Parts: sequence; C-alpha cells; structure tokens
Amino acid sequence: MSPSAPLTGAQALVRTLADHGVTACFANPGTSEMHAVTALDGEPRVRSILGLFEGVVTGAADGYARVSGNPAMTLLHLGSGYLNGGANIHNARRARSPMVNVIGDHATYHLGNDAPLTSDIRAMAEPNSKWLRTAAAPEDAGRLAAEAWHASLQAPTGPVSLVLPADVAWLPGASIPERLAAPERTGPDADAVEHAARALRAARNPTLLMTGPALTEPGLRAARRLAGAGVRVLFEFFFPRLQRGAGRYAPERMEYFAERVVQSLDGTDVIVLAEARPPVAFFAYPNQPCELTPDRCEVISLGGPEIDSAESVVQLADALGTTGTDGVPVSELAMPDTPQGELSVQTIGLSIARHLPEGAFVSDEAGTSGGPTWAATASAAPHDWLPLTGGALGQGLPVALGAAIAAPERKGLCLVGDGAAMYTNQALWTMAREGTDIVTVVFVNRSYRILNIELARTGAGAPGPTAQHLLSLSDPPIDFASLARSMGVPSTTATTAEGFDRALAAAFANDGPHLIAAEIA
Amino acid sequence: MSPSAPLTGAQALVRTLADHGVTACFANPGTSEMHAVTALDGEPRVRSILGLFEGVVTGAADGYARVSGNPAMTLLHLGSGYLNGGANIHNARRARSPMVNVIGDHATYHLGNDAPLTSDIRAMAEPNSKWLRTAAAPEDAGRLAAEAWHASLQAPTGPVSLVLPADVAWLPGASIPERLAAPERTGPDADAVEHAARALRAARNPTLLMTGPALTEPGLRAARRLAGAGVRVLFEFFFPRLQRGAGRYAPERMEYFAERVVQSLDGTDVIVLAEARPPVAFFAYPNQPCELTPDRCEVISLGGPEIDSAESVVQLADALGTTGTDGVPVSELAMPDTPQGELSVQTIGLSIARHLPEGAFVSDEAGTSGGPTWAATASAAPHDWLPLTGGALGQGLPVALGAAIAAPERKGLCLVGDGAAMYTNQALWTMAREGTDIVTVVFVNRSYRILNIELARTGAGAPGPTAQHLLSLSDPPIDFASLARSMGVPSTTATTAEGFDRALAAAFANDGPHLIAAEIA
Repeated sequence: MSPSAPLTGAQALVRTLADHGVTACFANPGTSEMHAVTALDGEPRVRSILGLFEGVVTGAADGYARVSGNPAMTLLHLGSGYLNGGANIHNARRARSPMVNVIGDHATYHLGNDAPLTSDIRAMAEPNSKWLRTAAAPEDAGRLAAEAWHASLQAPTGPVSLVLPADVAWLPGASIPERLAAPERTGPDADAVEHAARALRAARNPTLLMTGPALTEPGLRAARRLAGAGVRVLFEFFFPRLQRGAGRYAPERMEYFAERVVQSLDGTDVIVLAEARPPVAFFAYPNQPCELTPDRCEVISLGGPEIDSAESVVQLADALGTTGTDGVPVSELAMPDTPQGELSVQTIGLSIARHLPEGAFVSDEAGTSGGPTWAATASAAPHDWLPLTGGALGQGLPVALGAAIAAPERKGLCLVGDGAAMYTNQALWTMAREGTDIVTVVFVNRSYRILNIELARTGAGAPGPTAQHLLSLSDPPIDFASLARSMGVPSTTATTAEGFDRALAAAFANDGPHLIAAEIA
Repeated sequence: MSPSAPLTGAQALVRTLADHGVTACFANPGTSEMHAVTALDGEPRVRSILGLFEGVVTGAADGYARVSGNPAMTLLHLGSGYLNGGANIHNARRARSPMVNVIGDHATYHLGNDAPLTSDIRAMAEPNSKWLRTAAAPEDAGRLAAEAWHASLQAPTGPVSLVLPADVAWLPGASIPERLAAPERTGPDADAVEHAARALRAARNPTLLMTGPALTEPGLRAARRLAGAGVRVLFEFFFPRLQRGAGRYAPERMEYFAERVVQSLDGTDVIVLAEARPPVAFFAYPNQPCELTPDRCEVISLGGPEIDSAESVVQLADALGTTGTDGVPVSELAMPDTPQGELSVQTIGLSIARHLPEGAFVSDEAGTSGGPTWAATASAAPHDWLPLTGGALGQGLPVALGAAIAAPERKGLCLVGDGAAMYTNQALWTMAREGTDIVTVVFVNRSYRILNIELARTGAGAPGPTAQHLLSLSDPPIDFASLARSMGVPSTTATTAEGFDRALAAAFANDGPHLIAAEIA
C-alpha cells in the first residue's frame, strides 16, 4: 500500500494497527464510529468481536493481552462508552495489559455545539490511560495508531487511549507510517541483583516476592533454585498470569487479608522484590496496619515493570550460585477421586482438579469461593491462572472471553462469583456467538459474601435489616442456568458433588461455551 | 439529635441527607462503604435499594429525580464503581436530574499506598459533577452532605459528587448541620419576555421551543394559549419529562435527524427558547449542517435552566395578551380497537394506547421502534413520558426502576430496545426484589437498527460481513423472556398483535414487574 493512497483516517488507523500485529478488535460502536466499522470491514487481519456492553469489550482486551502479550484494539462510543468500559480498563492497568482503546468522538467542528452525547473524553480517559492522544486530522491517524501500539507495549505496559473524531475518521488524506519495532524491557539491573544476592546470603529469613513475567516458566525455574538455597518464594496475591500445575514449581501466594500477611511475614529480615511492590493492605481497617513490611526488614527491589522480572530472578539465582533444587518439589499430577455428596466449594475444587484440560487458562473472579479450587488445582494438569487484578468486579467473564479469542486452541475455565457474574453477564452472549471453548462455573452463594466478612472486619457493626438487604443476592434467587441459556450458552445447574463432576467433564468434552450454576448456598 | 452526639462521618452524612428530605439510597457498596451501610441501617427515613451494577444505581437515581423532583443518594464503591455508573450520570446531567453521588474511597492515610483499587476518583468524577467535594474529616461530613444536596438542586440542577474516605466514614466527631432551604429557580426575565413577545407579534412564522419544567401542565396550558395566537410550539427531542395524553395540550416534538429538523424549521423567522437551546444535530454527518437554526431566523432566549421555563411561558402568554385557545385542541381519549395479526411496532403502539393506566410513567429507550407508540399514546390516558436524555444506552430500565421507587402508587411502563436492554439488564432483578409495578416491553428486532440506518447516513459505505457482524444481535437470538425470569421477573414472549395485547392487559392488571419480549424482527 502506497502512502499516497487516498486513505481515510479510520482506514489508516485500522491498517496500521494490523500492520503492527493487532489481530482483534473488541467493539461496541455507535454512529460516530461507523467509518471505523467499515474500515474494519476492509481489514481481514483483524477479527472484530461485538460486546453488548463496553465492560465486556475492555475486559476481553485485557484477557487477550494476558494470554498473547499483545494489545487488542477496542472501539468505544464516545465518553459514555469509555465510562462503561472504564472499570475493566482500571483492572487492565493493574494487570499491566497492553490495550489500544480507540474512542470515537463527535466531528471536531461539532464539539462546540454540545450535543447530548458530548463529554470531556480526554478528562475521563486520563486517569487510566498511560498514553492519550487525539487524532486532530486524518494525516495524524496512522502515525498515532503506531505510537499508541508502541506506547501500550512500552514498560510499564498498559492501556492507552486514542480519540478518533468522526470527521478525522471519514476524511481522506491519511497514510500508513513506517512500522515501529516493539519496545523491549530493559535487562536486569546488575547492581540491584548483586545487592540482593548479598542481602539474601546474609539474611536469616529471606523472602523473594514476585509478580509479572517472573510468574512464567523461566522465572519459576529460577525461583525454584532460590528456594533450594533457602529463600522463601512468594508472589503477590493479585497478578496478571501464573503458569502452574503439574511439573511446575509452585511458590506461595501472598495472603489477602492484612493481618494474615503480617503473620505470614513475621520474622522476615530481607524481602527482595521482583517487579512486586512492598506489601500493602487491600483496604484500610480501623486499628490495622496498611503497610505490611515487617519492622527492621530490609527491602531490595530488582526493578519495576520496566525490567523483565523473569530475567532478574534468573540472574539473581545465578549470582547466588544456586544450582540445587533438591528438596524443592515441582507439583505432581494428582487425580482426586470423584467427589461425592453435598456440593461445596471443596468438591468443586476437586472436580476441577480432575478435569482441567492441559494448557487451559483459568479466569478467576470467584472471590471467597475460589480458595479450595486454587489449592486443588496446584496438582492439576499444567495451566495458566488469570485472576482479578484491580479489584473492580466484572473482570472474570470478559477476561475469559478475550483469552479464548487470543488462544482458540486452548480450553478455558471461568470461575466467577454470582455477584461478579452479574456485573458483565453480557459476556456470555459473545462467548456463544464466537463459539469460544469456555466453561464458566458460577459459585452461587446468593451473597456478596466478602462484604459480609468485611462488615465485621471493618468494625462497622452488626448488620441490621438494611445492611442485610444490601449485601444479599438471595431474593429473588438468580437462575444462572436460565440466564446463560437466554444468551445462547448451554448450561447446567449442579446441586450435588457428583452432578457437578459429571457436568464439568461433559462441558470440557464438548466444543463451545457452557455454564454450570453451582448451587452452594 | 444534639450536634454534640458522637456521630461518625457516615452517620452524619446519611442523617443530614434524610433531614433534607432524601428518601432513597440506590447502592452497590464495597468494603470501603461498610460504615455507610450500617449508617443506613440506622436511618429509617431512607429506603436502601441494591443494584447489581452501578449503571442501575445511577440510572435509578435519575428516574427517582425526574418523577419526584428531589435527589436520591447513591452509594458507589470507589473510582471503579463511579465509572460503572458514569454513563447514566452523564444521562442524568443531560436530564438535569439532581442526584447526590456518595463515592467511597480508601482511608485518607491509605491512598498513598496505591492499593489495587486506588484511582483518581476526583479526576474521574469531575466531568459529570456540577459540584465535587471530598470529606477530609468527619467534622466535614454533615455540612458537605447538606451542601451537596443544596448544590444538586441549585439551577442548573444535576448530579453532584461527594467523596467519602473510609476513615472519615468510620471516625466519630461528626455533627448534624443546620437544615438548608431548597434553592429556588429565579423568576422569569421580564426584559427577555417582553423582547420575545414583541418579536412573536412581528413574526410571520414564529416558533416557541421548550424543555424543562415548561413541559409540565402549567407550561403546557400557557403554551396552548400561545398556539392559539399563532405561535408554533415545539419541544426538544430529548427532554427530562413531559406530561401528555388525554386532556393535555400536545405540542410538536422536534425531529431527531438533522435534515428533518432543517426541513421542519424552514421559513421560521423567530424562535423563542424556553430553557431549550438553539437546535443542533445529534451527530455530525458529512456534508450536513450541525447548527440547525434557519438563516436569518431571530433567536430569543427566555433564559436557561436557572429560570423556571414554565413560568416564563406563562408570562410570555400573558405579555402577548393571548387568552383564546379556540381551535387548539387538547388530546382526546381515544381507545383503539384490539390490534390484530402480525406483531409490529404499530400494533404495539395501539395496544399500549389502549391499556396505559392513568397516571403511568413511561420510561422510553425504545430507539427506532418507539415512534408508533409515541404517536398512539398522545390520546392515551394522561401519563408522564421520561425519555433517554443523554444518548448513552442503558438508561431506560434503571429510570423506570427509580421512578417506581419515587412513585410506588403509579404504574410504570418501560419501552426498551433489545440493544439498550442488554446494557443494564441487571435492573430487572431489582425491579423484582422491590416489587415495583413496572411493565417492560422489549422491542426485539435483533439489531442495533439505528446504526444500520446511520451507516448509510454517515456515508460509511455498504456494510460488509464485519460491519453486519458488529451491528446485528441475531446470532445467537437473546430470549428476553427467559432472561427476565432468570432474575425473578415474570415474562411473556409475544409474537402476534393479539398476544401482545392480552399480555399487556394482564401485566398492567397484576401487581409487580412483568416483561414482554415483543418479537418484531
């Protein structure tokens, strides 16, 4: 394609992103995005996927990035479309997921008329955009698309926003820029590695705390060597992706509740951070600490997200001269028996450990119900774990969707609480439409259970009728199996351990999405 | 209650809002809002209503305000909760609906730790908040709550935001402030009225264009006198609330599409604006005008939202000396026959006109399907019409919910397109839980039909497979009746005119919510 071809701004934007390897556009377009839609029509390299709510769109782009490492494009309708997608952009920012959010806007000359959908898009997008530009003319569209792609992949990777006014989209005069090279993370900081190695050698109770790329196989292998040298290896409670299951070393996950973190780290005299940050509480509580590093504990950072944490951990293991991993086991495949009797979060975990397909990805927003499944699947077939990252509900279903689009050859499992599932239930429709191989397990406990726990922990007092009304999902009971079928996703309601086990085995054996409503209330 | 009682910030906030007449709190709280939840427990004057997604919460507050004229409180969980509710706050801003959004935040001393849910709430809330404060200490909470309430009712009325950090909520030291008086709109601008009266007398083709309070009975009666004097009376296409139906004067609604507005206003030499703004296009289109006032047409404003537009129209009619309304009819009650045959938007309109209960409110987000119902109900029993205001989808169901909470003695009708219904489908659950008398009609055309129209109007070209994929809801077909039942709302699928008519009559005859999936594809 010659740079002098009469491309519109929208065409140049889409083609440039495709040139840079973007293969998916998650979208919910409106009138101001119609030229972007027909530009997508003309770009066979990009698969366009409709979400019926923008939280689905942006959460799917997060899942896509976590599995592929590459940004997807989103197409959002003006400021309100951006706001609808905003919570999952927040979550994606915390996951450090690259993502190019293309936000349509009114034609440049129409903005001053303050038509009903006019809003201050830049102000809205600023807090969750590590890079934010507006294409002021079609001539800018291709270059800014390339820069947006590049910026999303520049450490710290994350969501970027490109505002595309309607007239910039439809006017000719655009061109395709030179292809940019993908930015690379900086290599490990040799001084920091040496400093950390010395501190670890001298420490009585040293800990390595990791997140980011360190949680994939090269980092985990090196971390196992450190464990063999007597270093306790932890990773942050929230992380973008962890490779785990049979054959892999399983470090410890940090505790969630602050008081348990304090207990867990008691006596630690050195903490080395690989992309991780010093531990802090998720929420503040009256009379509880928020900064959870033990007193008199030395904290040494190998570097932030600008450095590949996997390589840092490898070099740290080398610097420590650790070679032995004797006594540090990797997980062994264990096949629990078919669980029997009453359905519970424990039996669900055992069934999932039995049936999880090799190479599956697991999108986890199960909240208080997920612990036993997490524990049981340590010995399941090897898989990738993709948890909630930013704490904003509604991430699990869309992340599973996006992961499936990025890796259609893999099976997906989505673990989601009933409260979280309702936030972005529209994702089920897109799962059906796109024929994604995702088994969704909804933990139906008919409660925002975490809040019933937090109500006590914050000392807010005993819940009266109003508080109970605000934290319960029991009245009316939501029929998740019907909800799924209403959107084209086959489903099962499970009320016994055996029934759940059978439904799960069948769901993984079949193609396409399936939802199991696990009645554990 | 003595000001010296040991109130927490949360208690003072809730009690102060209740003292000022706030009777409802629409909420989706999280850990940082637990003390606000137990404060609501202790305040019987406020009804607390849970929404399973924040777009439901804020849209309901909009509906509550449009029917009652008073702000509801919302309770939102941090920045992500605000973002989820943001699109309907945008819509509420366009409706000029007063609303006090209480946004929980981390404890003040925890913010610097940048825990996962931390975000720049003030930056996010700023664009759609006409007033925005953070309670920095419990001593501020009561006073700021009173000021928030007052600010939301100060012209132009609209949503305000009060950020409540968790420690400010839980710490004692708060007090209840003096009760503030509700702000009142300024009286009409006598000079503007006189100027407009002179211009109307001299004009050949004068038009009055209204919105706001002018669309309630006093304004409509005065507008009818102006019509009797030869003034064409129009109102904006988007408006917060219109009283219409039998016995009421029915002015003309402005056209939606720009080219039709131009055609409609052709030859108009004077436009007098009562709170309305000079007409502009909803979107820009290539080679179409955006500013739609005819050339050489004089435009005179009676004043913006700071002035009561109903009173302005009354004074304008007085100034013009108009007394006669002969020949300007009010709508007469007409009872169409039972429609027969194939179900269509036309037969739906006739059925609704037959069965709409007197005093009903109608929340309208029916998009391209709503025209025939709008036309047919001009002669239905008297009712209030509450349309989409800001163009962001997902307003219709929550507005109906909030209106029903504000006016439980009235029947509600929600008209919603299938695309719009999916945005905030969670509202159905709250309708069931709260026992609201709302009949929802989903126009199931399995398409973002407006976009199929807009694709052509924007000249974006013929839709290829990708564009068709992005604008269609047909695959898989959504079963709205099952969706509703899954959330506890009884439902019917209607495929014939007679079937719809029967279902609608039965739904209005019964208490509680009902959904009719009207298959018109």
